[in-house]
Amino acid sequence: MSSSITLSTSDLQEILSFTSDLARRAGDLIIQGSQAIASLGSGDGIDEKKNSVDLVTEYDVRVEELVKKELGAKYPGFQFIGEESYAAGSRQPLTNEPTFCVDPIDGTSNFVHGFPHVCISLGLIYKKRPVLGVIYNPFLDTLYTAIKGQGSHLTRRKLGSASNGEHETVQLPIGGKPKYLGSLSKALIGIEWGSDRSHPIVEAKGESFKRLAGDPQEGVARGQMAHSLRSLGSAALNYGQVAQGGLDIYWEIGCWPWDICAGAIIAQEAGCFVAGSPSSPLDNDVNEDLLTGRKYIVIRAIGDSEHEKGVDAQKRLIKEFYETVEDFNPPS
Amino acid sequence: MSSSITLSTSDLQEILSFTSDLARRAGDLIIQGSQAIASLGSGDGIDEKKNSVDLVTEYDVRVEELVKKELGAKYPGFQFIGEESYAAGSRQPLTNEPTFCVDPIDGTSNFVHGFPHVCISLGLIYKKRPVLGVIYNPFLDTLYTAIKGQGSHLTRRKLGSASNGEHETVQLPIGGKPKYLGSLSKALIGIEWGSDRSHPIVEAKGESFKRLAGDPQEGVARGQMAHSLRSLGSAALNYGQVAQGGLDIYWEIGCWPWDICAGAIIAQEAGCFVAGSPSSPLDNDVNEDLLTGRKYIVIRAIGDSEHEKGVDAQKRLIKEFYETVEDFNPPS
Repeated sequence: MSSSITLSTSDLQEILSFTSDLARRAGDLIIQGSQAIASLGSGDGIDEKKNSVDLVTEYDVRVEELVKKELGAKYPGFQFIGEESYAAGSRQPLTNEPTFCVDPIDGTSNFVHGFPHVCISLGLIYKKRPVLGVIYNPFLDTLYTAIKGQGSHLTRRKLGSASNGEHETVQLPIGGKPKYLGSLSKALIGIEWGSDRSHPIVEAKGESFKRLAGDPQEGVARGQMAHSLRSLGSAALNYGQVAQGGLDIYWEIGCWPWDICAGAIIAQEAGCFVAGSPSSPLDNDVNEDLLTGRKYIVIRAIGDSEHEKGVDAQKRLIKEFYETVEDFNPPS
Repeated sequence: MSSSITLSTSDLQEILSFTSDLARRAGDLIIQGSQAIASLGSGDGIDEKKNSVDLVTEYDVRVEELVKKELGAKYPGFQFIGEESYAAGSRQPLTNEPTFCVDPIDGTSNFVHGFPHVCISLGLIYKKRPVLGVIYNPFLDTLYTAIKGQGSHLTRRKLGSASNGEHETVQLPIGGKPKYLGSLSKALIGIEWGSDRSHPIVEAKGESFKRLAGDPQEGVARGQMAHSLRSLGSAALNYGQVAQGGLDIYWEIGCWPWDICAGAIIAQEAGCFVAGSPSSPLDNDVNEDLLTGRKYIVIRAIGDSEHEKGVDAQKRLIKEFYETVEDFNPPS
């Protein structure tokens, strides 16, 4: 389990500072790309689509190149996992070495449409566990950060009309004292329709969503009557929302390590319970199996009630959630 | 069709200035409420819920009282429609008089959970049509405004790391030149699960969403393979997103005039096509039937292609959308 590079807490703090700055620079590039897409004029539908898609690909590549180049120059001994290298077939098992795990633009459908839930997601894996995470949405100017053992934080514009737009950094979850959550019926749940739209997957998702939303007392079999369901279209930002307490639960099948690596450590450090597939152990351990398992669920920090400890409620609600929804395997 | 009060364009500009300031003050109160809810400590689940719900009701009432009082003092001759007066049974038909139509907190589920898509929605109806709209989300500091015949605008913090957080006002849709949209398969579509969760409604919505998302070439009957589906949980902010071009379409059954009044004029002035139920005329006229009809669809500004005018594409896509989804009647 040895690694040729040793990372101390102060190393991680320095890396967080560097990667946070880098994420903001990447954010500027993402905004530039979005403006280029928005300023495409009207015209024939086919050429229009081609132009948008070309620009998305161009900026996806440009952001990844920027990030890879800067990280490579500053941390030459670190490994790098990203969509492109992974897709190119170099699916090496994780080593104990520090490994950046990056999605340059998470929420590409949002990016092409100008729906402002788009981010760069930048995680650092060390000894096969996420130890640092940075998620930056340049459209809402929200920066989520975490270092293992140091809590997680959100840097945003101060709220309220008396604010002059200065930034503030708040520890997550917002409000400090997590509330108890006793039932899925009180939960605001993040779900996504994803990119795989074949009949079995759309059926499995659609039926699962109906059960989560439906009222069992009004005839919906296995209904949980969740407070409601939300879809933002970015896995990383959904983890951020659960970390801050804005969503209670987020469930996903089909995304990849770079979509969730930064989010997982940000969530864990905010007191969330991060888990994988229904058949995995419920131990809040983001190991290689979980990172690469393509099945994810995360539940927010839950305060103890008189009758149940928060961590027991987290595990119970994950089990109840998995008993409600349909499991399926995503295409590889 | 006469009204005892006559509103000129300069009157409307003055009302817009006043109501925009008022919306920001209401936003401060909404933030204060959100902070009060977030700072509720952990504890027994039932008391916890009661406290949250109490606070939501309290702030809903406080924001409405603030808005009613200020509007009443400044514009004593104007009528007022809000959730409370409507629910109290005073469902008078619209007159030709100027009538404010206000939802003090749109997105109350988001508000109670701290999910940052919450707004005040403030519309003005004159001669039975919306003529002015203000939607303000204090969490994202986004202000949508419109006056009939004057276009619609978004005031937000400037984007990019070089910004010091100063505000900018941009005309909608963002980017200026609306793109062509030829097919639902290229659309990012706003949908909501709503609050009515009985079996027939959850089935109708769930099946509709599956068809919108599903790939007809992969076995989904009547599938449209939309680019994706999004759920923010606020009707007014969904209209704002369609106006700015971040969503292509938003479809809703079950909300009320105050949820959509401001959004409708903001959308129309951004070149959107605003329509009601499948059986209504497709004429982009937000009349009393549409306002109170509880069935709504809005599609973004579409630029002409070589083969189809934008307005024809808007109407065709609304028809195709309504042929895809299931119609149903919400509980009264």
